[in-house]
Amino acid sequence: MEQQDPETTPVRTIRVELGARAYDILIGPGLIGTAGLEIALRLKGRRMAIVSDENVAPLYLAPLVESLTAQGIEATPVILPAGEKTKSFEHLVPVVESIIGARIERNDAVIALGGGVIGDLAGFAAGIVRRGSRFIQIPTSLLAQVDSSVGGKTGINSPQGKNLVGVFHQPDLVLADTAALDSLTPREFRAGYAEVAKYGLIDRPEFFAWLEAHWREIFSGGEARIEAIAASCAAKAEVVVADERENGRRALLNLGHTFGHALEAATQYDSARLVHGEGVSIGMVLAHRFSARMNLAGIEEAERVERHLRAVGLPTRIAEIPGPALSAERLMEAIAQDKKVKSGQLTFILTHGIGRAFIADDVPGSEVLSFLTEQLRAGDAPGA
Amino acid sequence: MEQQDPETTPVRTIRVELGARAYDILIGPGLIGTAGLEIALRLKGRRMAIVSDENVAPLYLAPLVESLTAQGIEATPVILPAGEKTKSFEHLVPVVESIIGARIERNDAVIALGGGVIGDLAGFAAGIVRRGSRFIQIPTSLLAQVDSSVGGKTGINSPQGKNLVGVFHQPDLVLADTAALDSLTPREFRAGYAEVAKYGLIDRPEFFAWLEAHWREIFSGGEARIEAIAASCAAKAEVVVADERENGRRALLNLGHTFGHALEAATQYDSARLVHGEGVSIGMVLAHRFSARMNLAGIEEAERVERHLRAVGLPTRIAEIPGPALSAERLMEAIAQDKKVKSGQLTFILTHGIGRAFIADDVPGSEVLSFLTEQLRAGDAPGA
Ligand SMILES: NC(=O)c1ccc[n+]([C@@H]2O[C@H](COP(=O)([O-])OP(=O)(O)OC[C@H]3O[C@@H](n4cnc5c(N)ncnc54)[C@H](O)[C@@H]3O)[C@@H](O)[C@H]2O)c1
Ligand SMILES: NC(=O)c1ccc[n+]([C@@H]2O[C@H](COP(=O)([O-])OP(=O)(O)OC[C@H]3O[C@@H](n4cnc5c(N)ncnc54)[C@H](O)[C@@H]3O)[C@@H](O)[C@H]2O)c1
Ligand SMILES: [Zn+2]
Ligand SMILES: [Zn+2]
Repeated sequence: MEQQDPETTPVRTIRVELGARAYDILIGPGLIGTAGLEIALRLKGRRMAIVSDENVAPLYLAPLVESLTAQGIEATPVILPAGEKTKSFEHLVPVVESIIGARIERNDAVIALGGGVIGDLAGFAAGIVRRGSRFIQIPTSLLAQVDSSVGGKTGINSPQGKNLVGVFHQPDLVLADTAALDSLTPREFRAGYAEVAKYGLIDRPEFFAWLEAHWREIFSGGEARIEAIAASCAAKAEVVVADERENGRRALLNLGHTFGHALEAATQYDSARLVHGEGVSIGMVLAHRFSARMNLAGIEEAERVERHLRAVGLPTRIAEIPGPALSAERLMEAIAQDKKVKSGQLTFILTHGIGRAFIADDVPGSEVLSFLTEQLRAGDAPGA
Repeated sequence: MEQQDPETTPVRTIRVELGARAYDILIGPGLIGTAGLEIALRLKGRRMAIVSDENVAPLYLAPLVESLTAQGIEATPVILPAGEKTKSFEHLVPVVESIIGARIERNDAVIALGGGVIGDLAGFAAGIVRRGSRFIQIPTSLLAQVDSSVGGKTGINSPQGKNLVGVFHQPDLVLADTAALDSLTPREFRAGYAEVAKYGLIDRPEFFAWLEAHWREIFSGGEARIEAIAASCAAKAEVVVADERENGRRALLNLGHTFGHALEAATQYDSARLVHGEGVSIGMVLAHRFSARMNLAGIEEAERVERHLRAVGLPTRIAEIPGPALSAERLMEAIAQDKKVKSGQLTFILTHGIGRAFIADDVPGSEVLSFLTEQLRAGDAPGA
């Protein structure tokens, strides 16, 4: 794996221009080790609660605490089990109580050190302690660096579905240490990559073409990785600034997610079968195929998307999901329960082609059902 | 008790001018019976979850459901035990899940039917379901009508203290049915009255003088009651519009509350000993007495405040609280834990006299301690 020298690789800064709540995203290798300095430059607080998980803490908690201590900041760690199940009230309540117990005051902050699960949970906790406490994201998964840590959506799951409970709560700072991604499993790295590709598919066709040419360098780590993460954060930040509370354009970020969430729900969020980014990968291919079926885009666009995602090693077909076969009816049920349903009519992100996604809020459920039935009947295997 | 005819008594409307989140507060007798109509005029939703408590639901749930049904709105009631202990995660979680279970969508709403406990809890639940759902307050206690239902502060308590967990979430509509106050116990009515008097003490000396002259009519129900509630809501709305998130002036609403909260904490929130408004009543007298001690106001101002609050039947001295005697040290400890503490320095709302309250953020803790010791030593009995 190509290594970067933290001394010579410059840190990229993306500013999220949200008026009084504007903040910086710093991207580069080694940022966990310099976190204390970056934080002390921006926040006056002397106490921080660090929320992390059992996979990430052994690797990165010590250097983070050390860099905070060097700035005279007292750190209180709160370590949780890893995995999606942690995004629940069961874990939220003790986290909230630990944060209050750490006596976090007005200028202090909650730090999330981990993937999207930790970021969503810790951000929600920060959003409700004293009706909103300062919050710093130190995302350690690719998905968290390019997606979940940017934009202020926080939350947990309820027995009825994913992310149904939460708040909008913007961070005060995001530190994306690109070297921390080296310890991610290849599968988790690929899953995060699906979200990187998503930004190209939404409205940046030239970025998608660049990814097709450079994905190997992104996977091996190096300037291209930093470049891809910075471009992704910039793309997301632009959408978030235009539509902070998802009343309009922000919904484009859900490209591939209605199908993806349905697949996650139908597989009971069992990460052995499917992780979020894999669902998004299959979902993006389905969104392009469905758009072609609706005569909105040519089928060759869907095929190009599928070719690239398969090249990086992502699943692109429902049939690739291990375990019991899924039925079209079960998927439709999950789609209907998804929060983007408006009194019966379905809202989908469809596309006129690569980089030309749009919000369609009048998609007939019957069309979706026959499309899914077709996809499943056709064997739905790669190359089918 | 003087009765008003809902047909002839006009409903007062106070508009809370919060830009895109502006909303109306309607005040008048019989509004529970016409709630369905008022709601249908403003919201498109067809489904509402009604959160209420075991005291209020038997009295007002049926007419509310009936008025909603008459407008084709489907209502799902969620009934909780009455009392401050209900403001906890333990009760929040099932309320959130019931709201989601009621399939509340984008235009639907959560309705709080009850006192401040129900309003705070249901408002918090509405604030976090789908990162913010529509919310209607139907406050049924005087305290809730003049204070907690206006302004968007919602939340629950944590083992470490009151209101430490919550969000700012503005309602879409507030319906204050002044006839519903007839079933309140006199003690709860008086407790709410302490907050009414508070608005006069903060910055409306002529309103305080009017209360001194008209309090009997307010207690017996009639035009003066509606007038007092409308004036209180207008006063609170003005402060909230000027400072929605309590960065500045809104803190004035805490007049009497630092002492009051300390008394509530020191009596373990045992409502048999002290309810919130009683703590505020004693706290406001203490704030005026302490201001006199600091040579900020004349002692006759404190005496006038105490005279009025005692006239309506509110406690004004620490020694009036039944049960074991409280110590100055225990109260100081509670004050230090209060959220208005800024790195050691104490923030208090003090006053230059009736209607001339101000924020003092450099009050020496030692002065407060000796003041409290003095008050307790002096026997602290009315007239002492
Ligand atoms: N808030 C948002 O806008 C938003 C957007 C997209 C996704 N999400 C949420 O993000 C979550 C998924 O995020 P995720 O994929 O990061 O999941 P995750 O947090 O579960 O991380 C995936 C796995 O990688 C491990 N891990 C993380 N960083 C590591 C590192 N540097 N080295 C070794 N192991 C590491 C974790 O412990 C976990 O086992 C979902 O809950 C999803 O709903 C939120
Ligand atoms: N959100 C805010 O801005 C804000 C402001 C002030 C107070 N509060 C909160 O409000 C709460 C206190 O409110 P409260 O005094 O209304 O308490 P409450 O909700 O407990 O009501 C007091 C009692 O009166 C009963 N009751 C209510 N309406 C009734 C009616 N019409 N007839 C008969 N019984 C009735 C209730 O069941 C309860 O037993 C506290 O938790 C406090 O923290 C919030
Ligand atoms: Zn995603
Ligand atoms: Zn109060």
